[in-house]
Amino acid sequence: MRMVDLIVKKQEGKELSKEEIHYIINGFTNGSIPDYQMSALAMAIYFQDMTDNERMEMTMAMAESGDQIDLSEIEGIKVDKHSTGGVGDTTTLVLAPLVASTGVPVAKMSGRGLGHTGGTIDKLESIPGFHVEISEERFIELVNKNKLSVVGQSGDLTPADKKLYALRDVTGTVNSLSLIASSIMSKKIASGADAIVLDVKVGAGAFMKTTEAAEELAKAMVRIGNLAGRNTMAIISDMSQPLGQAIGNALEVEEAIETLKGKGPDDLKELCLVLGAQMVYLGGGADSLEAARTLLEEKLANGQALEKFKEFIASQDGNPEVVNDYSLMPQASFTKDVKAEQSGFVTEIIADNIGVAAMKLGAGRATKESEIDLAAGLMLHKKVGDAVEVGEVIVTLYANKEEMTEAENMALAAYKIGEEQLIPTLIHEVITK
Amino acid sequence: MRMVDLIVKKQEGKELSKEEIHYIINGFTNGSIPDYQMSALAMAIYFQDMTDNERMEMTMAMAESGDQIDLSEIEGIKVDKHSTGGVGDTTTLVLAPLVASTGVPVAKMSGRGLGHTGGTIDKLESIPGFHVEISEERFIELVNKNKLSVVGQSGDLTPADKKLYALRDVTGTVNSLSLIASSIMSKKIASGADAIVLDVKVGAGAFMKTTEAAEELAKAMVRIGNLAGRNTMAIISDMSQPLGQAIGNALEVEEAIETLKGKGPDDLKELCLVLGAQMVYLGGGADSLEAARTLLEEKLANGQALEKFKEFIASQDGNPEVVNDYSLMPQASFTKDVKAEQSGFVTEIIADNIGVAAMKLGAGRATKESEIDLAAGLMLHKKVGDAVEVGEVIVTLYANKEEMTEAENMALAAYKIGEEQLIPTLIHEVITK
Repeated sequence: MRMVDLIVKKQEGKELSKEEIHYIINGFTNGSIPDYQMSALAMAIYFQDMTDNERMEMTMAMAESGDQIDLSEIEGIKVDKHSTGGVGDTTTLVLAPLVASTGVPVAKMSGRGLGHTGGTIDKLESIPGFHVEISEERFIELVNKNKLSVVGQSGDLTPADKKLYALRDVTGTVNSLSLIASSIMSKKIASGADAIVLDVKVGAGAFMKTTEAAEELAKAMVRIGNLAGRNTMAIISDMSQPLGQAIGNALEVEEAIETLKGKGPDDLKELCLVLGAQMVYLGGGADSLEAARTLLEEKLANGQALEKFKEFIASQDGNPEVVNDYSLMPQASFTKDVKAEQSGFVTEIIADNIGVAAMKLGAGRATKESEIDLAAGLMLHKKVGDAVEVGEVIVTLYANKEEMTEAENMALAAYKIGEEQLIPTLIHEVITK
Repeated sequence: MRMVDLIVKKQEGKELSKEEIHYIINGFTNGSIPDYQMSALAMAIYFQDMTDNERMEMTMAMAESGDQIDLSEIEGIKVDKHSTGGVGDTTTLVLAPLVASTGVPVAKMSGRGLGHTGGTIDKLESIPGFHVEISEERFIELVNKNKLSVVGQSGDLTPADKKLYALRDVTGTVNSLSLIASSIMSKKIASGADAIVLDVKVGAGAFMKTTEAAEELAKAMVRIGNLAGRNTMAIISDMSQPLGQAIGNALEVEEAIETLKGKGPDDLKELCLVLGAQMVYLGGGADSLEAARTLLEEKLANGQALEKFKEFIASQDGNPEVVNDYSLMPQASFTKDVKAEQSGFVTEIIADNIGVAAMKLGAGRATKESEIDLAAGLMLHKKVGDAVEVGEVIVTLYANKEEMTEAENMALAAYKIGEEQLIPTLIHEVITK
């Protein structure tokens, strides 16, 4: 087999076989296929696209390119959830205990990640004593006992995907639906998921700008998952504004706890119920999506979801009293209210700008070595559709430094205020097969 | 300017500017743009193609990427000819003295080249004493005095093209019309041509398999040349069989001399008159293509073309007596007749197979270090359309070794003999603008 012949085959619009795709990904991972051939192939894929089978084989070849997590000792169907980007995504913090409270196991591996705020494990570390450095044995034991544990990601997962993404980034081939879909799915499959729930964000602030593009990506991933033997469902959700009100690490934990108490922002709660229902249904905890949702609503109402969260925190040495006393978490020394400069209705909150403001306040990590300020962040007091008056507080900034002008300007620039009242649709579509 | 943005621009089908194309080619040549970005761009060009202006700028950027030959001290319009591949192409040996005999200067730089037979300068070195190692001053002096000189190519011409071709070869992007056309044209322009005549071969044995593809390439190159201020014309000629009868170095010189005497093969003579007329017309030696052809026919008939050849040989220390005594050139120790294995009409002679047979006999150079046997080669006694009987001699092999079985089998495999008599069309099209 010669790589140049496979490039030409794809260039001519033909379907690459399983053996050919694995040859390409193995060779690229071990360096026998050079970057200049891989980038030419990526460009040919951009133009000629891939069939569902090719996407699935690409996914599997990348999933198998490095370490793979073995969750087979955990009883039950392990369902993993993935969101494609998004700012202020507190869903995982809510979903994990909520779903686990129904008996469906949640074995979450999470990274620290670069970005506007920390990853799920950074956020959880806002809770005193909580840590994710536990052994694989302890992790499995905890999930079997409590149905829930979160551990820091270890091992070298999907090196082919990491290498390919870095190459795509500099060769104009990031925007290939096939490559995006197989990249996301390979990571989920390498992480040991038996079933997958996907939350594809859409909107000006998201990677997918239109509902059509988001739908195409969501459907492609659902087909890959099902072809790969992993039951997969997806939703398409709105990103014309950040989800919930909190952006930041401790702030998002607080918001998640509020939601588990039934008091969180409506949009966050609704998204968690929709995604959670898919997770519970795919995990075998209910016979239908409707029954799963009803079950989740009960778990919120009767306090069992919140209890599951406390049990989880305690099981990883965190102080569960945090649910009653948020001041146990890092607190910002300074706050600053940002006031509206015009009256009208909020028509959009550019999520990316809010994210950058959070970074400026110290909530995120620009490089792997950066220190995160867990107390830093923003609270959004007004959301899309809300009326505002000039001088009304729309955002509060939290930081451990007094100077916040840059973040304030960013937050102001994120808010679009107009004359028309728009009521955003949170869930654009639910894709179940 | 960032290369990744330019890749995306082309990927989206937009036109790259002059500055952008020069930035790309300069960066690729000096290594600041890596191969993996260039191969991605080449693939994007394959799919989105280039406009005539982009092709011209690409041509100029590559022409300017290394040394450029300055022929400005030579009086008159310097017309260069290029053939896109082909086996047994004796045209340059005939055309150079034929065109020079009309007063149009022929300043030929030629390489030794790899391939089935040697390059033009290898062929000329079959003539005792003849050599091409002359200084640039002497070369210019000879062209100004005699209107003709041939010199070995020196300097590092079009390094961008060499590097890009090597990359295209392994990334499935050889077959881009824009890249093929700009590659060929860049070399001609770097060689100092004021005007260019192109002979695009078409047929199973040629790079361009169909007349449509050849026409597209020829027209693209003519437009590039004219946009670049170099008057350019082209013809599309047949490659369903090798041109003429001789394949080999000394054998082709002999055939060229025969043609200059008016006795060569009809197809070779006709092609030389058509290409020669374009060269003379573009070189200002006649007011029309018709007048140019008439002039060339006169030069053949009155012996002035042959005299020009003798003068040229003598001017570069060769023995001009070779025109009367071919035995002054290297002679093969062994010959072998190849006989037809069936009766019928010759319907095709696969040029590539004949070329490989010539290689096997020693006429070509597989690596730069290979020694060429100037006496080795083949004479084709039957051409397409000729009737043959079983046992009739169709080819004679020439070599300095007795064992020629491989070459014999190759030659036999090259001949397609069928029941129908096909009369091939030599010149498919003449493109004058």
